[in-house]
Amino acid sequence: MMEHWDVVVVGGSAAGLTAAITARRHYPDKRTLLIRREERVLIPCGIPYIFGTVGALDKDLIPDGLLTQNGIELLVDEVVGLDREGHTVTTAGGRQIGYERLVLATGSLPVMPPVAGFDKPNVYAIYKDAALLEALQRDLQAARRVVVVGGGFIGVEIADECNKLANVQEVRIVEMLPHCLLVSYDEEFCTAAEDLLRERGIHVHTGSKVSKVIGDGRATGVLLDSGETLEADAVILGIGATASVELARKAGLPLGPTGSVQVDRTMRTEDERVFACGDCAEKVSFFGGKPSPLKLASIACAEARIAGANLYGIRRENVGTVGVWSTALGDTAFATAGLTENLARRHGYDFVIGVSEGPDRHPGCMPGASVLKVKLLFERRTRVIIGAQIMGGRCAGEMINIASACIQRRMTLDDVAAFQMGTHPALTASPIAYQFVNAAEAALQL
Amino acid sequence: MMEHWDVVVVGGSAAGLTAAITARRHYPDKRTLLIRREERVLIPCGIPYIFGTVGALDKDLIPDGLLTQNGIELLVDEVVGLDREGHTVTTAGGRQIGYERLVLATGSLPVMPPVAGFDKPNVYAIYKDAALLEALQRDLQAARRVVVVGGGFIGVEIADECNKLANVQEVRIVEMLPHCLLVSYDEEFCTAAEDLLRERGIHVHTGSKVSKVIGDGRATGVLLDSGETLEADAVILGIGATASVELARKAGLPLGPTGSVQVDRTMRTEDERVFACGDCAEKVSFFGGKPSPLKLASIACAEARIAGANLYGIRRENVGTVGVWSTALGDTAFATAGLTENLARRHGYDFVIGVSEGPDRHPGCMPGASVLKVKLLFERRTRVIIGAQIMGGRCAGEMINIASACIQRRMTLDDVAAFQMGTHPALTASPIAYQFVNAAEAALQL
Repeated sequence: MMEHWDVVVVGGSAAGLTAAITARRHYPDKRTLLIRREERVLIPCGIPYIFGTVGALDKDLIPDGLLTQNGIELLVDEVVGLDREGHTVTTAGGRQIGYERLVLATGSLPVMPPVAGFDKPNVYAIYKDAALLEALQRDLQAARRVVVVGGGFIGVEIADECNKLANVQEVRIVEMLPHCLLVSYDEEFCTAAEDLLRERGIHVHTGSKVSKVIGDGRATGVLLDSGETLEADAVILGIGATASVELARKAGLPLGPTGSVQVDRTMRTEDERVFACGDCAEKVSFFGGKPSPLKLASIACAEARIAGANLYGIRRENVGTVGVWSTALGDTAFATAGLTENLARRHGYDFVIGVSEGPDRHPGCMPGASVLKVKLLFERRTRVIIGAQIMGGRCAGEMINIASACIQRRMTLDDVAAFQMGTHPALTASPIAYQFVNAAEAALQL
Repeated sequence: MMEHWDVVVVGGSAAGLTAAITARRHYPDKRTLLIRREERVLIPCGIPYIFGTVGALDKDLIPDGLLTQNGIELLVDEVVGLDREGHTVTTAGGRQIGYERLVLATGSLPVMPPVAGFDKPNVYAIYKDAALLEALQRDLQAARRVVVVGGGFIGVEIADECNKLANVQEVRIVEMLPHCLLVSYDEEFCTAAEDLLRERGIHVHTGSKVSKVIGDGRATGVLLDSGETLEADAVILGIGATASVELARKAGLPLGPTGSVQVDRTMRTEDERVFACGDCAEKVSFFGGKPSPLKLASIACAEARIAGANLYGIRRENVGTVGVWSTALGDTAFATAGLTENLARRHGYDFVIGVSEGPDRHPGCMPGASVLKVKLLFERRTRVIIGAQIMGGRCAGEMINIASACIQRRMTLDDVAAFQMGTHPALTASPIAYQFVNAAEAALQL
């Protein structure tokens, strides 16, 4: 029997949920169904914190109340087929569901390089899967030694959380590149993060590759290409993610250069009734429009707010992916908006850099003060801001979004230097020393 | 004997210091002299915190190292005359100093209403004067009861700090308006602040005026217009500030509608060699260009960065005063950028409001999480953002500056809704629930 909804969203994580909420806000008369495989949906960025700070998977769930509050119907099932001519999806549970508009928010899956032993039971890639993560948590709660393969965000965050467990005595990160987090920050920030990791007792093996996992049955360690063996009771892979596009591919929807579902600036696929957003959707960089490999929940939500608004008439356009992210090690935050120096060079920009560092309260003896460093990049010719990196206290997590706004609106060095910010002794740097503005002034001299 | 500098800056607080630093950055070959009356310069916004959190005036000083590091010469003296034709200032110490460019950054003085007894020795207006503030601190350290007249920022902050002193048993705020902070926030935020003040043990008397100060010789209390008497060992006035324009007036420089030194968008006065910035300079609102009465160190610094850059050729223009500020009561921050609802109505705007509230970490059980509320105002016709108010954890102090950037660049509701922000469990709200963006979506429905 054929059922019908106006709007059908496939996928229940950040992109799918946000697209459905946005659709309901913009088109409240449209019946909206969200179909997802998972009984329980994890807050994706919170996954590393399940193992330490938060302590339980159940505390890191997106409440289904968000669906009901917004008048979204829910079907827990797997969409296995998409008939674009018939405007119908079919599910593993045997349902046939017609749609007027379809949103693909099928997300991504962890990259699994073909390394011998990555299939062992105590080697875990971070799938957004509650049962698997619970199994990992059980293993971690019995582990003495943990090896994390991959020193990007997920790797660093999970390593730091494992390190908080009383039973875990040794945590090691194995990273191929010369530094952890090097895809996300310039070297001086990566070095600072590695210093913090080491201070916290975590061993960092950079410039290292895992040749194979050792152990009969269960993993007992990993062998590095240097010949060194690292013992492990659990191995965690945080190597990257690849778009889940099976459904789109089977339905003949074109994929883009990074292998994700091709969309235009309105988040529409080749099919005028079908939109895609989040990790499964192809992205272009805000800077020059090159394909962008970034996959983040925050990007997914911004895209979903465009897709959801455009379902029955174009209301918003995607300006391209700026790339804004942050992480924290204890009380120290690391954040980036736009291009790092490394990225700007690779994109071919000619740029100037300005750096400013100082306390994030005023006077500097106010409680909670820590040193905050801001690095800004401006294109030399146009003087437009193209990147920001911030390291410092927790408010760096919001400060980076000031930079994002300035980047999105292509402010110039002089716009940033004359920026009108609010300041307060207990909350920010002094207006005289405000690092974000002074970094622009510092760039002036280069 | 006549001396000569290229650039002479009169005033050593936020505006003067920042103008001098900016001048040196932009025109490093110009000899720059800063003349100020004060031997020691206070960080102006830090003054309330001297009495409690910081504990000592000496910890709230702007270090003179900022002058030497930037190659700025210092003269501690009072400028008493300005000869615009001769391009010369004269000082109380008898010096005659020629200039090529002059920056007036003479600041402001506290408003002193003509109330009987405000001249008593233990009644203090908050002059930026070290000796006077040290006298106030001595009195506070012996006081059991303190009355603060004026429930604006300074009043509320000083009251909260006095309340932290072990010897002070009763702190009362007397405010003429129906709520404390009503000039700076909409009613619901003021009410929340008042609730916090009361929870902290501070008595709030709103809709109340002081008719006179009572006591022979020293003040022993204040009489309210209701007939009620409030006993006090010290009375502090935080009623507002008025521009210090004596020097400019005597030199025949035109004053503007609020009685401050008239300047154009380049921060130049009528005299092409003379600039003014900070509390002494006339301001126009970013919204419609009306005269703006705002006087804040952050505004002073932004103006100084324009004035300093423009001394020998126009490089920056003032877009008008947006008005961005924040304060904190314990761990709760209150912040505004642009127009409050009250102000927008007074300016004659037709606008829509969106509000979003939720935890500022994700999941909400992450340590340090608190509830954050964002209220945004958009002009109805153009959908351009004209105001933001935020109440919540300390990062609201930086979050308001995201709003300031969006306001300065006239982002629309849809720009804000599709805003690309970075998020992180330990630092921000979730990307799904991010209040700043969701407040825009909420305004959509109005």
